[in-house]
Amino acid sequence: MRESDLLKLIYRRSTDLGPRVLIGPGEDAAMVTAGRDGRVLITVDQLIEGRHFAGPITSEEMIDGIARKSVGRSVSDIAAMAGTPAWGLATAALPAGFPQELADRLFERMSHWARHWGCPLAGGDIASLAGEGQLMLTVTVGGDPHALRGPVLRSGAHPGDQVWVTGLIGGSLVSGRHMSFEPRVAEAKWLADTLGDRLRAMIDVSDGLGIDAGRIAEASGVQIEIDAARVPRHPDASGTTFSDGEDYELLFTTSGGTNLPAKCPASGTQITQIGSAKAGIGCFIEYPAGKRIDASTLGWDH
Amino acid sequence: MRESDLLKLIYRRSTDLGPRVLIGPGEDAAMVTAGRDGRVLITVDQLIEGRHFAGPITSEEMIDGIARKSVGRSVSDIAAMAGTPAWGLATAALPAGFPQELADRLFERMSHWARHWGCPLAGGDIASLAGEGQLMLTVTVGGDPHALRGPVLRSGAHPGDQVWVTGLIGGSLVSGRHMSFEPRVAEAKWLADTLGDRLRAMIDVSDGLGIDAGRIAEASGVQIEIDAARVPRHPDASGTTFSDGEDYELLFTTSGGTNLPAKCPASGTQITQIGSAKAGIGCFIEYPAGKRIDASTLGWDH
Repeated sequence: MRESDLLKLIYRRSTDLGPRVLIGPGEDAAMVTAGRDGRVLITVDQLIEGRHFAGPITSEEMIDGIARKSVGRSVSDIAAMAGTPAWGLATAALPAGFPQELADRLFERMSHWARHWGCPLAGGDIASLAGEGQLMLTVTVGGDPHALRGPVLRSGAHPGDQVWVTGLIGGSLVSGRHMSFEPRVAEAKWLADTLGDRLRAMIDVSDGLGIDAGRIAEASGVQIEIDAARVPRHPDASGTTFSDGEDYELLFTTSGGTNLPAKCPASGTQITQIGSAKAGIGCFIEYPAGKRIDASTLGWDH
Repeated sequence: MRESDLLKLIYRRSTDLGPRVLIGPGEDAAMVTAGRDGRVLITVDQLIEGRHFAGPITSEEMIDGIARKSVGRSVSDIAAMAGTPAWGLATAALPAGFPQELADRLFERMSHWARHWGCPLAGGDIASLAGEGQLMLTVTVGGDPHALRGPVLRSGAHPGDQVWVTGLIGGSLVSGRHMSFEPRVAEAKWLADTLGDRLRAMIDVSDGLGIDAGRIAEASGVQIEIDAARVPRHPDASGTTFSDGEDYELLFTTSGGTNLPAKCPASGTQITQIGSAKAGIGCFIEYPAGKRIDASTLGWDH
């Protein structure tokens, strides 16, 4: 199938992209509207076969997971800023000989998940690799910062802040949850709605709880201490919970003395305080027996 | 080199990204400002080794061309809508063992060209391939539609329109110009400034003059006739001028009776009327001896 035929299939199902997409696929560029204050959150992530998911691609169920993860990773980035997704762009580099039915199914599912999370695909690009190679996708997502709180950065934590996490941590790769996670858009919005400036710093847990908490500590110039016993774990999480990564939960800090319900009223997702910030540098995980681990030695770097 | 170290190198040189980038690299998402009316042109393109340029990558000069083309393709898409580039995002998928110096040089040159064309890179993503594979880049560019004319679509041509092209056509791949073209941002702006709504339809010539003119004809519901003898050719263009592609010139139509100077006053780039639109369908190239070729049989599809 020629790329232009694939593109035509995509255009055909791109008729109703909602009020934010003024010009959809089929022109040299798409056109969207910014949010009311003209500020636009933007992010792009890659999803690469053999790196972010294991090939070969053998089923439609697998295609759905790949499509879902490719969009979900970028949506999670917008959520980590407390933003709301509004539009998307996608690229696909297909290995030579990639079956037409799978390609069409892939774009249909990417389109589905992008709409599902509020960022319909306004355009994109398809290319075929010269050789076999790996399937590679990118998804760009644009969104609106929170109208009152604005963007929540990694750098906003202060000494005395509480450190929290949504959901359960660990075992994402082994369990396959890394292909079916739900980006925490609703939870981030509820936190910003409810806490305003008391929501100090936020990140999504992609490379591991330890290393991502360390990023907040470094960006904010504080020390973060995590109480290992308080971290809510998936039942199937192993001893490497803090370094597994790909949890796509929100890790955030609030100004000291903040009370939050055990579950987010907007979604039912668990919210757990797991530590606190103080003056100093670095991120440390404290175990019941008194063991203290430097989080920079954990996590997943590429 | 770890990806996080490469990212740090990028952050370090991302200190002054201009007034449109409110939050640059280093957070989960970047934040930019839309143009005054809140409408945002967006596009994304891929650049793949072995497909859009030939490997292996052996020199810094080659790296500069790859970086330039990766950004220039998306900038050309914004120009084709008569827009002005404002911000960018980039991704890179590096083959295993890709030398650190070349990777750093690549990002430095991508950053350079993005600034050069007015769309500083506000963020991005770097991943390493599991195996050798091909270098793959994507560049997302956002821009402002023309303040008065708005976006110029492919679908705006009317019977009676004149058909024009900027610059010279043909031989781009053989000559290497496809790695060093200048996106026609200034020319597009001058046309929209000068002509307003008399600038009817526009596209950038990427897949070949014939096939791209055919796209305007199809989108607009008109027939386009191109006078082969009037098409300005590069001296090194071969007999396949109309199907070579990768010219990245503007092909546009104006309402009948429009006079344009032989050179764009904003840039000195040649402007040539090459044909006209009439009622009907399709795109045909007329040769002096009376031969008439259906342009849909030409050009370059993937």
